[in-house]
Parts: sequence; C-alpha cells; structure tokens
Amino acid sequence: MTMNFKRIAISGRIERANTADTLRSLINLLENQKVELIIEEQTASLLQNSAHTTAPRDKLAEHADLIIVIGGDGSLLYTAHSASTLGVPVLGINRGRLGFLTDISPKDMDHQILAILNGDYQIEERFLLQASHGDHPKHDALNDVVLYAGSIARMIEFELYIDKQFVYSLRSDGLIIATSTGSTAYALSAGGPIVHPGLQAVVITPLSPHTLTSRPIVVNNNVEIELVISSARGMRPKFSCDGQALNKLAAGDKLHITRKPQPLKLIHPLGYNYYDILRTKLHWGTKLGP
Amino acid sequence: MTMNFKRIAISGRIERANTADTLRSLINLLENQKVELIIEEQTASLLQNSAHTTAPRDKLAEHADLIIVIGGDGSLLYTAHSASTLGVPVLGINRGRLGFLTDISPKDMDHQILAILNGDYQIEERFLLQASHGDHPKHDALNDVVLYAGSIARMIEFELYIDKQFVYSLRSDGLIIATSTGSTAYALSAGGPIVHPGLQAVVITPLSPHTLTSRPIVVNNNVEIELVISSARGMRPKFSCDGQALNKLAAGDKLHITRKPQPLKLIHPLGYNYYDILRTKLHWGTKLGP
Amino acid sequence: MTMNFKRIAISGRIERANTADTLRSLINLLENQKVELIIEEQTASLLQNSAHTTAPRDKLAEHADLIIVIGGDGSLLYTAHSASTLGVPVLGINRGRLGFLTDISPKDMDHQILAILNGDYQIEERFLLQASHGDHPKHDALNDVVLYAGSIARMIEFELYIDKQFVYSLRSDGLIIATSTGSTAYALSAGGPIVHPGLQAVVITPLSPHTLTSRPIVVNNNVEIELVISSARGMRPKFSCDGQALNKLAAGDKLHITRKPQPLKLIHPLGYNYYDILRTKLHWGTKLGP
Amino acid sequence: MTMNFKRIAISGRIERANTADTLRSLINLLENQKVELIIEEQTASLLQNSAHTTAPRDKLAEHADLIIVIGGDGSLLYTAHSASTLGVPVLGINRGRLGFLTDISPKDMDHQILAILNGDYQIEERFLLQASHGDHPKHDALNDVVLYAGSIARMIEFELYIDKQFVYSLRSDGLIIATSTGSTAYALSAGGPIVHPGLQAVVITPLSPHTLTSRPIVVNNNVEIELVISSARGMRPKFSCDGQALNKLAAGDKLHITRKPQPLKLIHPLGYNYYDILRTKLHWGTKLGP
Repeated sequence: MTMNFKRIAISGRIERANTADTLRSLINLLENQKVELIIEEQTASLLQNSAHTTAPRDKLAEHADLIIVIGGDGSLLYTAHSASTLGVPVLGINRGRLGFLTDISPKDMDHQILAILNGDYQIEERFLLQASHGDHPKHDALNDVVLYAGSIARMIEFELYIDKQFVYSLRSDGLIIATSTGSTAYALSAGGPIVHPGLQAVVITPLSPHTLTSRPIVVNNNVEIELVISSARGMRPKFSCDGQALNKLAAGDKLHITRKPQPLKLIHPLGYNYYDILRTKLHWGTKLGP
Repeated sequence: MTMNFKRIAISGRIERANTADTLRSLINLLENQKVELIIEEQTASLLQNSAHTTAPRDKLAEHADLIIVIGGDGSLLYTAHSASTLGVPVLGINRGRLGFLTDISPKDMDHQILAILNGDYQIEERFLLQASHGDHPKHDALNDVVLYAGSIARMIEFELYIDKQFVYSLRSDGLIIATSTGSTAYALSAGGPIVHPGLQAVVITPLSPHTLTSRPIVVNNNVEIELVISSARGMRPKFSCDGQALNKLAAGDKLHITRKPQPLKLIHPLGYNYYDILRTKLHWGTKLGP
Repeated sequence: MTMNFKRIAISGRIERANTADTLRSLINLLENQKVELIIEEQTASLLQNSAHTTAPRDKLAEHADLIIVIGGDGSLLYTAHSASTLGVPVLGINRGRLGFLTDISPKDMDHQILAILNGDYQIEERFLLQASHGDHPKHDALNDVVLYAGSIARMIEFELYIDKQFVYSLRSDGLIIATSTGSTAYALSAGGPIVHPGLQAVVITPLSPHTLTSRPIVVNNNVEIELVISSARGMRPKFSCDGQALNKLAAGDKLHITRKPQPLKLIHPLGYNYYDILRTKLHWGTKLGP
Repeated sequence: MTMNFKRIAISGRIERANTADTLRSLINLLENQKVELIIEEQTASLLQNSAHTTAPRDKLAEHADLIIVIGGDGSLLYTAHSASTLGVPVLGINRGRLGFLTDISPKDMDHQILAILNGDYQIEERFLLQASHGDHPKHDALNDVVLYAGSIARMIEFELYIDKQFVYSLRSDGLIIATSTGSTAYALSAGGPIVHPGLQAVVITPLSPHTLTSRPIVVNNNVEIELVISSARGMRPKFSCDGQALNKLAAGDKLHITRKPQPLKLIHPLGYNYYDILRTKLHWGTKLGP
C-alpha cells in the first residue's frame, strides 16, 4: 500500500555549498507539485526570502507525512529519532557521495522524487535502540549506543548481561551496541561484521578489548542488554547514542538497551538494492568477466 | 511438553580410552532404567560381549526416540544430520572438556541423565544448512559449508549471490557459510563473529580475502545463497559440509545453500546457559569483585 | 661483563597488601647482603619505622646502580624513563602474576635476587620513544605514544609522515605508536602484531580506522614519525606516553616521535625466555605429545 | 655507485595482449640504445621473426647485467630467485596496474628506462628466505614460505621454534612466513601487518588458527625458524615458496627457514617512494585539504 505525500518537511546540513543548491532545486521541484512544504528552522535561515513554514528538527514529524533529508548518513540519524516515534517516513538525498541511508543522488533527484510522489517507491522498516539509565529519559539510536571512557583513563571496566544472563566482564576502551543499520558505521571500523538491515539483530563489538579472545557477538534484537559499570574503580565512562555524547555514568550504574517499539520507515526509490550500495561503498569485486 | 524416552541410541568415538569408560557407565545406567538400547555399530564392536541391538550411525534415528552421543562437538555433527531429518532429539556427553554441543560432563552424567529421563530438560532447535550443486544430492551441515581451493593453487575466484542478488566477486582461499551453531567453530578461527544460536542467521566469512575490505556478513537464514565458480580460470575448488570433503566443483558450477527444513532438536540439562559455555571456552572475564 | 650492584633503589605500588609483604621480604634480603638501600618516597611512607634513605621516583636513578620495581608492568614504565636516561638497570618483581617486564615471581625472589647480586643475570636493552610538539619538553615512552580524541568527538583526523614522506591521512579514534616492548600492551588489543623486543622496530596501529584497508605498519625505529593534526576541523586531540595523558594538541599541531638515544637496561634472571612468557600470558599451545 | 647496463635480459608473461605490446616497444627502445638483448625462451616464442639470443628463465642472470620483467608482481618473483643468487639487478614494468615490485608503468616506460640506462636510478636490496627439509635442496622465496594442509583435512598441527627456542604448537589451516617484501602479499590477506621493506624482519602469520589468541609475530630476519610437523596425526602438509607448491611433508618432518645470504637488487626509477605505492594500492587517504 503506497502513501500519498501531501505535506513534506525538508532538512539539510546547509553549511556545504552543494547542499544549498540541491535544497533550492528540491524546493522548486516540490512547489511545482503543489505539495505543502515545511522547512527545518536552521535550514530555512540560509534560504534568502524564504516564505515557507518552518519547524525545529525534532518537530518536523508533527507537521509532515514525509521528511526529506539532504546530507550524509549522519544528517538523517537525528531526524530518524522523532520521525520513527510518529511513524513518518524519511527519505535521504546524499550530497554526491552515496550513503547507506541517503541513497538518492542529486543528479537522479528530480526523476526519483517525482516517481516517489507518484507512489513508485519501496518502504523499508529499520529498528532503533533505546538506551536509558536510572530515571533518566530514554535516548534513541538508529546506528549505535557506545559506552566509552571519559577524559582521563582510556580503559573502562564493566559487566555485560543479556536477558539478565551474565555474559562477561571486560576491560576495554569501550563497547559498541549497534543495530543492523549501524553495523556498517562505527562498529565496522571496530571490527564488527556487516549485518543485513533486514535481520532483527544487534551486534555487540568491543573496542580494543584487554581480553584477546573477545569477539563481536550478534544477538536477537528483542533481548534486553544491560551494562553494569565496575564499582571497584573510580571510573566515569560516558555513553553516546548515534555519536551524540550523553550523560556520564558512575561506578555501579546500569545502562539498559532495548529495541525501540516503533521502527523507522525508510523510503527508497524502486530498484534499491542493499548489496549494490555495500559493494560500491566498500570497493568490492564486481561481476567476473567471461 | 516433555517427551518420555523409551528407546535410546548411543554413539561414541571409542578410540579414546576415557570414552569407553563413559560409554560402559552410561549403558549400565540406562539398563537399570529399563530403557531399550541401540548401540552404533562401530561403537558396539569395541564393547566385548555386547548383546545389544546395533545399527549404523545414519540409521540410529530410525530406531530410537533419543540419541546420546559421547565425544566432542565433532562427533555430534554427523549424527545430527540424520537425527534432524526424522526429528529425533540428540544429547551430547563430552569427554571431560566442555563442548558447545556436548554439554554434559562425565562427572555429572548419572545425575543429569536421570533428570532428563524424568522429563527435566530443555529442548532447543538448531537449524542446519543444505548444500547442493547440479543434480547431486543435498548434503547437510549443522556447522558450516566451506568452499575452498583444491590441491594445487590456494586461491579461488567466485561470485556470491544472495536471493538472486549479486553481492560480490572474490578471490580468496575460500568462503565459510556457517549456521549460528557453526559460528563458534571454523568461522570463528577465520575472523567471523559469534552468533547466538537462537538467531535465525547465517554468517558468510571469507578465508584470506584478496580484497582487504571484505568483512563477514550476517544474513537471515531463510535466504538462498549461490556461489558461482569463476569460468575464467581452470580452478576446481572443493566444498565440505561439517568438515567432510565432498565433490570437486568445476568452472561455472553453482553451489546452492539453503536452510534445511527440519531443525535439530538438541537436549540440554535444566540450567543450561549458552553464555556460561561461551565464557568458559573462550576464557572470558568472570564477574567483577566487590 | 657483569656489574656489581652496591646501591639498590626499591620502588613499589604499595596499595596492594601482597606488594607490601614482598617489599619487606626484599628489604630484609638485601639488608643481609650489606647492600646500600634507597626506598622510593611513597613506598617508604607505608613502611613503619623505616630508617632508609628515600628519594622521589624520578630521582632514584641518581642514587642507585640498580632499581628494583615491585608491581605490574605498568609500575615499571615510569621508573624506566629516568633510569634509561642515566643508564641505571632495572629489574621487575611481579605481584604473583607474570608480567612481560616484571618477570621475577615473589616465590622465586630470594633465590633469583641472590643469583643476580652474584653476577648471574642477563641484561637486555629495550629502546624507548620520545614524543614532543612545538617547544614543549620531550616525553619518554617505553610502551607507546598514543594520539586519541579529546572529550567530545571520538573521531580525529591527521596526517602521518615517516622520515618526511607522506604516508596517509586518517580518520580514526586514534593512533598507537608502539615500541617492540609495547607491542604486547595496548597495541595488541587494537589489533597490532607482536614484535620481538630484540627487533629495532616501531609498530603504528590505528584505533577503529574509518578506512577499512588501514593496517598496522612496522618500520625501523630510527625513523622520524610526525603526526600533523587536521586544520580543517576544530579538533583538539590528546596524546599520552605510556598511558599518562599529556598536553592537548590543536589544529595544525605537529607531534614528533623518535627513538630515545638511551635504551633501558632490563635485568633478567638467567634462563629468561621471551617466548615462554608470551606463551604463558597468551595461553598458547604447549609442546605436542608423542 | 651506478652500474652501466650493457647486456639486458627481458622476461614477460606474454599470454596477455598488452604485455606483448609493451614487450615489442621495450625491445625497440633498447635496440636503439645499442644494448645487447637476451630474451627469455617462452617470451621469445611469441615474438615472430625474433633473431635475439634466448635463454630459459632461470639462466637469464648468467647472461645479463640487468633483467627487466614485464608483468605483475608474481612474474618477478621467480626471476628474482636466480637473479639474487648471481647479484644481477631486476627491474619490473607493470601491465598498467601498479605493482609493489613492478613499479614502472608502460606509459612512463620510455622515459624511465632511458633515465635508468643513463645511470639515474635507485637500487634497493630486498632479502629472500630459503626453505629446506631433510636433504632436499633449498627453495628461495622473495615473498613467503607457506605451510598448509594437504588435500583432505584442512587443519594441520605443528610446533614453531625460533633459534631453537620453542614458541608454540598450533592447530590451524597453515602458517605464512613472509619477508618484509611479502608482507603486502598473501600475509596481508591473512591479517598480518605491513612491514617496511627496509626492515630486516620476518612476519609469521597463522591461517585460521584454532587458538583465538594467536597473533602475527614479527622477528629479526637473522633467526632460524623451524616448523616441526606433528607426529601424533597422519597429516601430510605441504609447503610452498612464493606460491609454488613443493614437496609434501610427513609426520615429524622439520621445515627450516632462514634468510638467503644474497639479497635481490631491485632497480627503481628516481623518485620511487614506497609509501606512495602503498597508499595507491590500498586506497588510503590522501593529504588533507586546507
């Protein structure tokens, strides 16, 4: 079942010149289609004489039935947090270099956006994680939750529990808990495997583990993950969600990570193929000749 | 729902002295329980004056409603192939050193076997893979299907397709397609991640890939994997299932790998915990002190 | 040519009870040998009624012709900095768990110390690195110099030059420049190779590199290594020597790393074998049976 | 001190069309320079109406004071074996794709060859390894000596000794003993580090080791390495030198590996830079922008 997008919000990282060009071009295109537009506040500030309705990034989803993000994969992450809560689909236009999430190129934009408005698109659900500790509010992550050392010592120590079962204690630079979407982001740099985004699985990857037999672990995403900070040392590790630094933790603190109930709805043009993107971005071998 | 085991088959690698001791001890225990026993042929040949019914290893499942394997994880693999086809559960007793599949120790055997006969056990389903090429019969694998070089050149070249989608072409020493069960076997040595056996996922891990950006990929186990051998070179790679060398392939041959419809039913004593076994076998950190 | 040790300095991390016991036992042993003793200040403060001469850790080498360190490998690192400058040999007694540098066990201490005082020992030279930036003083490292992100962003960006030749630019969590001695410390956790301490070589290992083809590089230790911090971003990475956090760097700063002219003289008991220690610490396979 | 090359031997893998073009072009160039030419036998067979002196590949060094190889890095390896014995320098012209050893491009060939004949070149020494077992003749390796499984079982078991000291026993798919030159060949695929070719060091890298704490080890190239095949199992591993399969080994056999006394003399054009080649071949980051 396809949706008919009538109110479209646009967000972009406009510090780059080519983003602004793509942005203006997209606005023209959509205005000609008689679509109601909402422009993200900061994005709008750089458009001279813009008369469009504006809204802050985390309110866009309240006013739109589609959000278009112009930028790299990183730009789409934060929009995804609020969009997933309200079930508003998101579509990403990259700035010339193909992204895993922003898979429409500026040069194909006109053609592909019109096709999508016409109902010719694929919709894919991507799950997120939620991290919380104590009474603090939950934080969303489309890519990953990362536990890492504070400013002084590099090494932290903690225990990992999955569904209340003790898995291991570890001394390391940190731990990455990534979604399948995030498996091709930071977790990949740290030695984690690629997990197909259709798999409902979480990858747990240590950062420079002191134990040489530590390995990435892939588990179902319906588990409850708990990280218990060592009480024996005066460590104050931090955690981040999608690269955004959050509260410091204290000795004995428990960080809970579970799947967010509402997935992100990600829009792709027809013909989208995950393996094509993977192969292009990782410079993998193309088909063999005859 | 627990099963009541009345006909029990026993198989063991009896070239090791301590296996024979465990075997005799197990037979005594089961005879006292008035259970009908079937002994695997080769296993029986080493028991002097054995009057028990015997059957070849791949026929045990036809005559029993439980198969007990004494040995290492490797001993259980082949029994698992026929047992899974007929849905007969399998239980493993190790030879002193804990296995991932053979998780009952000889010293706990009496107590735990009696509990299991009494209905106090856990049953866990583990999926298998099936590999076939051309009109050849399918071969089962509980751990892994491995494509690797024949005797002369070490490097092979092939294309990987998942659900008919081209993923990559690769020059490497080979490729391991492992079940979640097999993720802690050969694939782990080759740099693959640990995949929780409850996850319906397959890990594809290259062996010494020529492309440095090659990484293990984890996909849903309901996919169809196809390996197409390069036709440009005179390579004749081999493949193996659970370490057993099978047919040679020729240039252009296609090796198909899919999930076997029938899973293995693996019996564990109550209190079985996957993470405990993982931690013990990989020497991971135990709980932190106060 | 063996040295005759007449003035011996002792240093220990005395927060651990078993260190204090070993310390008292060592003092008794040396007093009976009519050796002049100098106790490190903090170490002495915990010895009640100690009448020994004391000196701060970085002055011990000025007053002694041998320094004995009781503790883990980490305890020996800082003593090594000043000891190497003055050419005073160092000997390490571990706290029960074998170290790479502290290779005398408390239980073998009496016997082995007496042998060493008697001239029965091996002396091994281990090179150090020196790191400096701008007009700041040089800092010594027996294990490693680490460039890593400051408190906010995790990823840093820099260029690597070796002997003025451009090697690469990299986005990563950091970079470890390790001595062969340090190759079994932090660099090993980050995926670096083991380098025999007799090899005059430096290992350069990236931490979670953004480029998937990044690999550890081993180069001669007589090179000049220069890290140039990216000027395009507002990054303020830090660097540490042997785990001790030092100055923050600013955009465009250059961190120079070269071999320290004076090596550390490390004393081992006769029969010392590097591979034995490696095998024990890494749980490698022992000799095969017949 | 530069050499004046008067007798030049040429060898090429002429099954590729572009190699033949480069070959003819090179012959024309050299004939115009009044240089005496010797063409490798098989190479000559494909040149119609060639009136040049010919010699088999392993005799070229006896008749020339420079050998030029046209092809990939692999083509240069075997020529290097005999050339190093007689001290005849070797120069490599690649077939369009830059090699680590064949670092002259066909498009730069005319210019660079003339410069080299004119004495404008760099000469670099690269050490080789020699492998032998029992009374068998020694085999040379510019890249690596590889111990690996025979046709049936994949896993082999052996002990490693360095300078008569026991290092470890290992179960694995094999072991790569690579020169610094070979560190960017097969050893790199297997997870080994890059070793600068100027470093007199050998890298020992396991292939899919059963022990998860196995790591590549870098040692001085003046050591004597001995691999002792397990006698406990009926294994018949093979070994290869530079990819060429050699004798099978038997249980208990000892494979000795030492540095070859005579190095290879490798000719580079002026301006040759190892790190440039590394960066190009591994797609590493270029200099950062302003």
